[in-house]
Amino acid sequence: MPLSLAELAQRTGATLRGDEGVIVSRVATLESADEGAIAFLANPKYRPLLASTRASAVIVAPEMAGDTALPALVDANPYAIFAKVAALLHPRAAVPAGVHPSAVVDPAAKIAPTAAIAATAVIGAGAVVGERASIGAGTIIGANASVGEDTVLHPRVVVYDGCVVGPRCIVHSGVVIGADGFGMAEEGGRWIKIPQVGRVVIGADVEIGANTTIDRGALDDTVIEDDVKLDNQIQIGHNCRIGRHTAMAGCVGVAGSTRIGSNCKIGGAAIINGHIEICDNVMLGGGTGIYRSITEPGLYSGANLPLPHAEWQRVQVALPRLPELQRRLRRLEREVENARRPQHIGDKTGDGRADDSGDRGEIDS
Amino acid sequence: MPLSLAELAQRTGATLRGDEGVIVSRVATLESADEGAIAFLANPKYRPLLASTRASAVIVAPEMAGDTALPALVDANPYAIFAKVAALLHPRAAVPAGVHPSAVVDPAAKIAPTAAIAATAVIGAGAVVGERASIGAGTIIGANASVGEDTVLHPRVVVYDGCVVGPRCIVHSGVVIGADGFGMAEEGGRWIKIPQVGRVVIGADVEIGANTTIDRGALDDTVIEDDVKLDNQIQIGHNCRIGRHTAMAGCVGVAGSTRIGSNCKIGGAAIINGHIEICDNVMLGGGTGIYRSITEPGLYSGANLPLPHAEWQRVQVALPRLPELQRRLRRLEREVENARRPQHIGDKTGDGRADDSGDRGEIDS
Amino acid sequence: MPLSLAELAQRTGATLRGDEGVIVSRVATLESADEGAIAFLANPKYRPLLASTRASAVIVAPEMAGDTALPALVDANPYAIFAKVAALLHPRAAVPAGVHPSAVVDPAAKIAPTAAIAATAVIGAGAVVGERASIGAGTIIGANASVGEDTVLHPRVVVYDGCVVGPRCIVHSGVVIGADGFGMAEEGGRWIKIPQVGRVVIGADVEIGANTTIDRGALDDTVIEDDVKLDNQIQIGHNCRIGRHTAMAGCVGVAGSTRIGSNCKIGGAAIINGHIEICDNVMLGGGTGIYRSITEPGLYSGANLPLPHAEWQRVQVALPRLPELQRRLRRLEREVENARRPQHIGDKTGDGRADDSGDRGEIDS
Repeated sequence: MPLSLAELAQRTGATLRGDEGVIVSRVATLESADEGAIAFLANPKYRPLLASTRASAVIVAPEMAGDTALPALVDANPYAIFAKVAALLHPRAAVPAGVHPSAVVDPAAKIAPTAAIAATAVIGAGAVVGERASIGAGTIIGANASVGEDTVLHPRVVVYDGCVVGPRCIVHSGVVIGADGFGMAEEGGRWIKIPQVGRVVIGADVEIGANTTIDRGALDDTVIEDDVKLDNQIQIGHNCRIGRHTAMAGCVGVAGSTRIGSNCKIGGAAIINGHIEICDNVMLGGGTGIYRSITEPGLYSGANLPLPHAEWQRVQVALPRLPELQRRLRRLEREVENARRPQHIGDKTGDGRADDSGDRGEIDS
Repeated sequence: MPLSLAELAQRTGATLRGDEGVIVSRVATLESADEGAIAFLANPKYRPLLASTRASAVIVAPEMAGDTALPALVDANPYAIFAKVAALLHPRAAVPAGVHPSAVVDPAAKIAPTAAIAATAVIGAGAVVGERASIGAGTIIGANASVGEDTVLHPRVVVYDGCVVGPRCIVHSGVVIGADGFGMAEEGGRWIKIPQVGRVVIGADVEIGANTTIDRGALDDTVIEDDVKLDNQIQIGHNCRIGRHTAMAGCVGVAGSTRIGSNCKIGGAAIINGHIEICDNVMLGGGTGIYRSITEPGLYSGANLPLPHAEWQRVQVALPRLPELQRRLRRLEREVENARRPQHIGDKTGDGRADDSGDRGEIDS
Repeated sequence: MPLSLAELAQRTGATLRGDEGVIVSRVATLESADEGAIAFLANPKYRPLLASTRASAVIVAPEMAGDTALPALVDANPYAIFAKVAALLHPRAAVPAGVHPSAVVDPAAKIAPTAAIAATAVIGAGAVVGERASIGAGTIIGANASVGEDTVLHPRVVVYDGCVVGPRCIVHSGVVIGADGFGMAEEGGRWIKIPQVGRVVIGADVEIGANTTIDRGALDDTVIEDDVKLDNQIQIGHNCRIGRHTAMAGCVGVAGSTRIGSNCKIGGAAIINGHIEICDNVMLGGGTGIYRSITEPGLYSGANLPLPHAEWQRVQVALPRLPELQRRLRRLEREVENARRPQHIGDKTGDGRADDSGDRGEIDS
């Protein structure tokens, strides 16, 4: 879908600089762009590429606009302008409305006339599919579940009975929404299953990556608020609530009954324990494990940096001795201190034991 | 399905206190319960809510029964009573027996007459589906695989050829049972695949969470024993054996040929190396990595607690120096010790080198 | 498929020792083998089993051939010979060519006449399926995607529009190839989706384990080179490139735009950050997190070894104090050093502060 720079400027709100008649038909990186492509510069690291790019136009921040003579869309947030331009140049292929003959739709389901139900999809009794929603091939929607307007379920998604997916969501292949939470009682050396009678309720504008799983609530619902963005292979346990505009990178695990605030950014493979709360505006580094509530916004990290294997082995052997090391150092400090002072009868600070127990007290805290 | 407290007491074995005629129709939390709901108190932390709950009845332990005047089911294990009550009040919707016309069942498959085969399910030659089993929409059962009596395979499960799922199991959407284990030989800079000719054999009363994968054995079988409970997105490698009544939280990975004992509780995202053994009654904290066999029951942990990012950076920079720190501390201790003692010719303990090598010996062990 | 030792020797290139007429029909472990089975010994740890095995023949290295009088295939790489023997004795069941009547194949798809399309598979317009390829039940191939010759897609795989799977690949159930990468711009407290217009391009002889996900590129393609082997539940972010012959164990996560070299071996649950490069011939221990580029081949590790829980707690409490410990030790060393030397005016080395700042400098690096 070729568009002129003038049109792109007008529709994205960016400032146009240079020839407004330049036509572009696709987005590309500065490096791979050629005639007809528009590229962008958001990361200063790639600034040198501005000089050599063969793009027909670029998207840049004002402070870098001087680096190039190319026609440009200039904006303080070039990445957001790029997102809008890309959406205009590469619109999602329209899926024709209607139910494919191989789909299996229960007569008691309500499918909006503008919705598209692909081949081999299965839709249960009482389910609702909103206007312009697109249900992918092999996707299965349980009884009484609902899918909002303009939502896209890619092929082979499962939405269990009674769960709710809001409007304008994008759900990728392999996602499972509403499987039973992991709830069991132990009795006499056996597990007794706790029926999971809550639902999953997903707000508007949520995107969910491939093979992510979100369990239904045990009693109350599991809730994913508006504009939450989940990458691939994330696991959300039962009764969690994820606040609006929070984004999680791939492979994150969130155990049950945890509440994560809004505007959080959770790094890949972070692990978040159950029954805790994470306040708004928390960022977690990749691979960080969270086992207690976080009440202060900020960036938290926890994963180890890698080491050459032999060095790592030495560190791991030393690590369990760290508390003892701490005590030995403290004792030594006292000894050295005492050696500098004149001794007198009754001085106990050189004993060491008192320090040990003091340290132990801190250790137990 | 409304039931009286008298009936619930009788069917769960709990002691009834108060009005036996009270009718309840659903379970709820103390906080969200209202008229017609029965709530439970298992965690003392929520004890204060007993006073304010609007539930019609509660399930409590004897020592907390005095906190409420509500009709109650009293038992030393209130969580187990709750599980039973929930199952009675919220029975699984019965799926009518029979094969949906859109299912593709090989003529050489044996489907019990009381089994239910949902839309678009595919069942291979020689496969066996037991009495009252329920095969979900889009679920695929390979040739000569078998599914036990009363087992539920939710939509979009795959059971590869020849694998066995026992009776009364629950398998959630996206689960893959019996894909090839990860076995390859290296030759001349190329990988040669090792055919995986073993099966997966799953016992009775096993529950498997969404998108969990269990690989078939290379030569012998991968075995999941009775009453094992696996949460979502768990990976079990080829030739593993998981002992009965063991439970694993989400995102756990178990590499091939590892044996895990019975009654273990494995925390979320724990990683267990291949070719090791973990004895019975082991508990692992979330995110713990296990690289050697565990021969003593108990709780083991390994993940780092999170830190504010700048503090974490300082710790990570210091960590590789820990072995050196240990040596320096030891040398200093000797020096201080020597300074306190009268020096004499031939004393070598102040040298430091001997201590270093001693520490290095421990480090190598 | 029973074969004589003579035939196996000839077809695998191994040296035959003993009765060439012995017929074997299956592979087995030394322990479980009986009449008609051929076992192998690759790991010296199992050498004692050579004496007691009931196998009809064995595969061994020359240096262990003396341990058994059984007929043997002898080779310096017994595991590779075993792989070939297993493939000969246990060939994959041939799937008859043709399109199952329940499959939904767009008239504009090009299906090779020798390809097999299983029940309920869905193949989009413009898609290409090569000679002898096998498309499993419920597998979905998007528009204009292509699947190479002799490639096997197991049941319930998804290949998104436009993606390319090379020849002789094996893709297990639940794999999702080509879902959108995780790309968003932030504007005014909302996320704007970046359309993902690149593809996934997978080379020849690649194997991909169950429920693994590989995202399509944002602008350029995500590339998996020839002979890459991916285990189950791996996540590969958009625009990654994985070099030829690299193998990854289960549960690994690779964030976007990262390049991994060839001949790397990535341990299970390793986490690799985005926008970095890992050179050829790198090995990562299980659970290792990589946050910067690696430019030197070798084995790197990072996960903590587990500890009994109480000990782990003490270590975790002590760990944040490690940088302070380092400073205190350094100060003490100076004090002890100074105590041994005659003091003179102007000596500042006993002050401690200079050392602190020195250490801090290193910490910041």
